[in-house]
Amino acid sequence: MVAVDNVTQDAEDATALPAPHPAWLPDAVFAAVGRRRVALADLSDPGRVPPPGPDGPAEVLEALHGEITAATIAHGGAVVTADESPDLVLLLTDPEVPEAEPDGAVEGFRLRRTDGKVTVTAVTATSLLHGFFHVVRLEESAFAAPDADETHAPAAALRMLDHWDNVDVHPVMGQVERGYAGGSIFYDDGGVRTDLSRATAYARLLASVGVDRACINNVNVHAREARLLTDDLPEVARVAAALRPYGVRTHLAVSFAAPMTLGGLPTADPFDDDVRTWWRDAAAAVWTLIPDFGGFVVKADSEGQPGPFAYGRDHADGANLLAEAVAPHGGLVHWRAFVYDHRQDWRDRSTDRARAAYDHFAPLDGRFAENVVLQVKHGPMDFQVREPVSPVLAAMPRTRVALELQVTQEYTGQQRHAVYLGPAWAEVLGFRFRGEDTPALAEEVAASGGFAAVSNVGGDRFWTGHPLAQANLYAYGRLTWDPTLDALDVLDEWITQTFPDASTLLRSTLHTILDDSWATYELYTAPLGVGFMVRPGHHYGPDVDGYEYTPWGTYHFADRDGVGVDRTRATGTGYTGQYPAPWRDVYESVETCPDELLLFFHHVPYTHVLHSGSTVIQHVYDTHFAGVERVEAMVRRWEDVAGEVPDDVAARVRERLAEQLRSAVEWRDQLTTYFFRKSGILDARGRTIY
Amino acid sequence: MVAVDNVTQDAEDATALPAPHPAWLPDAVFAAVGRRRVALADLSDPGRVPPPGPDGPAEVLEALHGEITAATIAHGGAVVTADESPDLVLLLTDPEVPEAEPDGAVEGFRLRRTDGKVTVTAVTATSLLHGFFHVVRLEESAFAAPDADETHAPAAALRMLDHWDNVDVHPVMGQVERGYAGGSIFYDDGGVRTDLSRATAYARLLASVGVDRACINNVNVHAREARLLTDDLPEVARVAAALRPYGVRTHLAVSFAAPMTLGGLPTADPFDDDVRTWWRDAAAAVWTLIPDFGGFVVKADSEGQPGPFAYGRDHADGANLLAEAVAPHGGLVHWRAFVYDHRQDWRDRSTDRARAAYDHFAPLDGRFAENVVLQVKHGPMDFQVREPVSPVLAAMPRTRVALELQVTQEYTGQQRHAVYLGPAWAEVLGFRFRGEDTPALAEEVAASGGFAAVSNVGGDRFWTGHPLAQANLYAYGRLTWDPTLDALDVLDEWITQTFPDASTLLRSTLHTILDDSWATYELYTAPLGVGFMVRPGHHYGPDVDGYEYTPWGTYHFADRDGVGVDRTRATGTGYTGQYPAPWRDVYESVETCPDELLLFFHHVPYTHVLHSGSTVIQHVYDTHFAGVERVEAMVRRWEDVAGEVPDDVAARVRERLAEQLRSAVEWRDQLTTYFFRKSGILDARGRTIY
Repeated sequence: MVAVDNVTQDAEDATALPAPHPAWLPDAVFAAVGRRRVALADLSDPGRVPPPGPDGPAEVLEALHGEITAATIAHGGAVVTADESPDLVLLLTDPEVPEAEPDGAVEGFRLRRTDGKVTVTAVTATSLLHGFFHVVRLEESAFAAPDADETHAPAAALRMLDHWDNVDVHPVMGQVERGYAGGSIFYDDGGVRTDLSRATAYARLLASVGVDRACINNVNVHAREARLLTDDLPEVARVAAALRPYGVRTHLAVSFAAPMTLGGLPTADPFDDDVRTWWRDAAAAVWTLIPDFGGFVVKADSEGQPGPFAYGRDHADGANLLAEAVAPHGGLVHWRAFVYDHRQDWRDRSTDRARAAYDHFAPLDGRFAENVVLQVKHGPMDFQVREPVSPVLAAMPRTRVALELQVTQEYTGQQRHAVYLGPAWAEVLGFRFRGEDTPALAEEVAASGGFAAVSNVGGDRFWTGHPLAQANLYAYGRLTWDPTLDALDVLDEWITQTFPDASTLLRSTLHTILDDSWATYELYTAPLGVGFMVRPGHHYGPDVDGYEYTPWGTYHFADRDGVGVDRTRATGTGYTGQYPAPWRDVYESVETCPDELLLFFHHVPYTHVLHSGSTVIQHVYDTHFAGVERVEAMVRRWEDVAGEVPDDVAARVRERLAEQLRSAVEWRDQLTTYFFRKSGILDARGRTIY
Repeated sequence: MVAVDNVTQDAEDATALPAPHPAWLPDAVFAAVGRRRVALADLSDPGRVPPPGPDGPAEVLEALHGEITAATIAHGGAVVTADESPDLVLLLTDPEVPEAEPDGAVEGFRLRRTDGKVTVTAVTATSLLHGFFHVVRLEESAFAAPDADETHAPAAALRMLDHWDNVDVHPVMGQVERGYAGGSIFYDDGGVRTDLSRATAYARLLASVGVDRACINNVNVHAREARLLTDDLPEVARVAAALRPYGVRTHLAVSFAAPMTLGGLPTADPFDDDVRTWWRDAAAAVWTLIPDFGGFVVKADSEGQPGPFAYGRDHADGANLLAEAVAPHGGLVHWRAFVYDHRQDWRDRSTDRARAAYDHFAPLDGRFAENVVLQVKHGPMDFQVREPVSPVLAAMPRTRVALELQVTQEYTGQQRHAVYLGPAWAEVLGFRFRGEDTPALAEEVAASGGFAAVSNVGGDRFWTGHPLAQANLYAYGRLTWDPTLDALDVLDEWITQTFPDASTLLRSTLHTILDDSWATYELYTAPLGVGFMVRPGHHYGPDVDGYEYTPWGTYHFADRDGVGVDRTRATGTGYTGQYPAPWRDVYESVETCPDELLLFFHHVPYTHVLHSGSTVIQHVYDTHFAGVERVEAMVRRWEDVAGEVPDDVAARVRERLAEQLRSAVEWRDQLTTYFFRKSGILDARGRTIY
C-alpha cells in the first residue's frame, strides 16, 4: 500500500480531504493472502524486469511489493523469495498471456494453482498487479479451489474513467461538474493538490478492478483548466506520478481552441500548418514530461465547446489533427460523439436530438485515424435512467468506437438515491444490434474502442457520497474487464469485500436494497423511457415540464390526450431508421416496441394498453406508488441491519435513504398530479392524487 | 453640480464605472434657469443658515450653489446676490411651508412669481434644493406663467429607495440582487467604491424628483454585508457623505442576528438585556459617525433571514427592539411585512401565501413603536405585473404603514422589456379600500409610513440598463411626492427633460411605446392576475409550471378543465375576507370580480365567460397574440425615430426591443401551447399554436 496512510487529517487545513473509507479494500480482504508466504519474483533482479516504458514498471512493482508487505505484516504471513516455498508467487515474466494491446503492450495474467500453491504470471507490472488483486478478491478460495491453469485478460484493451473535475471552482458547476461526492481528489484552491495521496488511493481502487486509464479534468474545458496542457504540465506530471504506482495512466481533456487561447494563433483550423505544428509541439512537451501519458479527450462543437465546425471542417478533420500530434508517442484521442444542437426550437418537432450523433458521425465512418477512439454515450440522449442503445454504436464498423457510461449518478439520483447501475449497464452491454445470434454490444466495443465512463468519485470520506454508490465504481471496473459477468454476482463480490464480516441478514438486505434499485428508481421517475422531467440546471428531482419549452431538445409532448415522442419513420422524426434490423422495425411499431421504451419512440393516448395489460395512465399511477413503497421498504430494511455496519456508514446511508424517500414521494406526487391534471383520468385504485 | 464630472473613465480600471448618461438632467434642461440671474440668498451669511442638523445644510447649499453656477456658466446667466435684481431667488428662510415631518423637520417650499421674477423659499436646504429642481423642471414656464404664490410639499414625509446591493458579488444573486443595470454604484471588489461620484450623481437625480432617503444595502443581509453596521461604518460614512450634498439620507439594512454574528452574544432575543444594549451601542456608534443617518431596514423571518420567531417573540417585539435603539437619534426602523412560509407544501391547498402578511401583522396593530414603519409590498404576493392591493395596507390604522413598490423590473421584464410602471403604481395609489368616496390608498399611506421602493439603478451607463427604464425611477419620485399626478403626465415630463430637443414625432412615439407598455407586458405574460409562470430562480421568461410544484406558495392549479386559485371565503382559502367591504364581496363573487384579477381569486373553467365577453381560454389566446403584435409595433415605431436620439441610446433601445420581442414571442407560444395542450380547446381564430 503506497501513500494511502499519508492523507492529511489536519482539521485546521480547510482544503485537506478526510481520511478515506477503505471501500472494497478493507484490511480483512487481504487476510487470505496476508497470512501466507508471498513472493514477488524478480523485483530485485533488474534483469527480469522489462525495460522502462509506458507501464512505469518500477513504481508499479514497488507498489505491489508494498501491498504484499502490508498484507503479510497485518495478517502474519511473510514476504519471501521464490525459492523459499511461497504459497503465492507473483512472477513478472515473458508473455504467456493471450491479448495484446494495439500499441503492442500485453494485458492480462495467468493463474496456476497446484496443491494450494498459486502462481500468477504477467508480462507487465500493471497486469501482475491486476493478477494480485484478482487473488485478493478470491480470498481463501484462491488457494482452496481445485488445481487450475487459467488465463485472465480484459475483454477490452481500453477501460477509462473520466473525471469532470475543474481546477477552479466553477461558479455554476462547482469543483466537480455533476459530482456528488465533495470536491476533487486532484484539485483544490485553484491548483493541483499538494497532497495527492487520495489520488494514489483512488488509483489503487481502480487497479483492484482493472481500470488503467483516467482522464483527470472536465471535458468542458474552461480557461483555467485549458492551461493544464501547457503552463501547468509539471502539475499534471505530479498527478500522473500519483496514479502511476497503481498502473493508471493519465489523460487530459483539452480544448479544441487551445492553439488560439493558449498558443496565440489566429485560428484553430485543423488544416492550418501552424495549428498542426502547435499541437505536435504541445503533445511532444506532454510526453517528454510524462512518458506514459495516455492521450487527449475532446468534447468539440458540443454545448458551447469549440470545434472544427467553426472552420468548415468536420469531426474527422478535427480528431485527426490531434491524432497526428499524439501518434508519435503512442497516444490516443478520445473524441466524444455527444454533438447536438443545444439551441433547438421546442416548436420544431422535426428536429430530434436523438438523431444528432448518428447524423453527425455515421457518415464519417472510415475517416478517423487509427488512434482516434470515438466515445459514444450509451443512449442517444444523455444518460437517462432508460434509453435505447445509441445506434451510433452499430453504425461505424471502420471506426474505433468506445461505449461511454456514467458512473456518477447525474440523472439517477445523484448519489442521494441508492441506485445500483450494474443491471442497467448489463442490459446495454448485452444488447444485440442485429438480433439474437449476433454479437453482444460488449463484444463489439471491446474489440473496438473499449469503455469509458464518468467517475463518481470525489473528496468525500466515502469516495462517492452515498456509501452504497461505491458498488457502481466497482461494477464499472469488473463489468468492463469481463462484460459476461452477471451484474448481481458483481454486486455480491462488492458486498463480500466491502462488508467482510457481514451476517447473512446484512448480505441479503444489501441485495434486497440494491439488486432492483435501478428498476425502483425508474418506477418513480420519468415513465416508459420518456426521460428527463428533471429540474433544469441541477437535474435533481422532478419537474415534468422543466425541459418542455427549452432549447435542449428534450421533450415529452404531453397534452390532455397523450404523451411521448414520435420517432418512427412512418409519422415521426425517423430516428427508428438509424437502427439495423430487427430493431428498426421492433421500435417502429407500437405493437412490438418494448413497454419500457414506448414513450421514447411513440406518442400514444393515455388509454393506450401496454403489453403489461395496463393503460399508460394507470401504469404511471401504479409504478409511482409502487416505487415509493419500495423505497419505504428500503428504509425499513436498512434499519434492520444498520447496527451491523460501522456507525458512520449506518448514519450516512440512513440520511441518504431518508432523502431518497422524500424525493421519491415528490416524484410520485408531482408525476401523478401532473398526469391526472392533464388526462383527467382517475386512478383506478383511488389513491391520493393532488 | 458636484462631482458628477469626476467619474473615472479609465478603461484600464476594470472596476471603474462608465461615465453616466445624464438621464432627465441634460444640460439643456437647465437653460431657462441658466440664462437668468440667479441668487442663492444667505449662503454667505451664516446668520441666516439654520444650525447644523440632520439635513447637512452646508453641503447641500454648496451643491445648490454648484448647480446654479454650472447652469449659469453653461447658458450665459449669472450668479448674483439678492440685491442684484435676480430673476430667480433661492432663499433659505423661516418656515412659511405647510408640512412638518414627524421628527420636527419641515419639508416643502414656497414659490412666488411676480412679473416673471421667481422666489423660492424653504426652511431646509434640502427643500430649497427640491424647489430649485422644481423650477428647473418647469423650464421657461417657471418664469413665463402668470403671477403665482404656491406652496409645494410632498404628500408623504417618507420617500425612500432601497438598494438590494451586495458588497461581495453573491454567488447566485450577483452584485445587485434583482439588479438589471450592471454592478453596484456603491460597492465593487468586496468593499465600498473608492470613487463614489456615481453615488453623488445618483443622489442628484433623486433630489430632482424629491426622494431623500436611500437604503444602501440588500435586505438579504449576508455575512459580509452585515459588517457594514460595525467594522465598515467608516465606509458607510463615505457613502453617506457622497449622498448628503443632494439631501439624501443613508439607511442600512441590518441582520436581526447581528448581536450574535457581529457581537458574539449567545442570542438575539429581543427581550435579552445584552441584546438591547448591543443594539443601542451599535446605533449610537452609527449616529456618532453619521449624524444624519436615517435608520435601519429589516427583513426578518423571511426567506431564511433571521428574526424574532426563533425566540418565541413576535414581529412587534423584534421591531421595537431596534426602534428603542435608534429612537434617541431620531432614527427609523423600516420593518418589512414580507413574511410568509417559503417552505410550503404545494399539495396543501388550504395554506395561502397571499394571506400570510395579514395573518402575521394585522393582529399586531398598535403594538409597534412610533418610529417603526411597517413596509408592505403593494400586493400580497411579490411584485407581480397584476395583483390586488395588499389588505395589510388597510388593516393597521394604529401602525405607520409604508407602501413598498418595485422600481427594478424583477417580474416586469427586467429592464430588457420596455415597461413604464407609472400606470401600475397609479392604480395602486388610487385604490380606495372602503369604496368610492373614501380616501385613496396614497393619502392613507402618505399620512402614515410613506413610500419605499426597490431601486432599478446600477453602474450601467444608462443607470437602468434600458434607457427607457429611467422613466420608472423618475415616476417613482414624482408620484410619491404628489400621488395625484397623472402617470402619463409624469411620463411626458420625463420625455420633455430627457429628450429636450424631441420632435413631435419622437415625443408621440415615446408615448406610443411607453403609455400602455405595462398593459402590453400583462397581455403576453401570466393572464388574469394569476401571476408567476416565470422561470424559477432568475424570474425572467416563461415557465408556466415553473413554480407549480415548488415550496414557494405560488400556484395556478391549471388542469384540463380550468385554472386559477380559489381564494374565496365560501370555498377557498378565505383570503377575500382580509378586505374591508366592498372589496371582500366584490372579489368573493365571480360575477363582480374584475376580469384582470379573476384567476387570482377564482378557479374557473376555461370556458368561463369574462365580463369582456370572451372565454378565459380565448382571452389567453387573444391577449398573447395581441401582446406580441404590440411589441412588434414598438419595434417598428422605434425605428421611425431612432435617428433622432443619440446613437448609443438608439442602439441600446433597439437591442432591448429585439430581446423584448423574442421574449414576448416565447411567452406567447409557451402560454398558448400550454393551455391548448391542457384544455384541448382550439383558438377560435385558428392561429398557430404548437
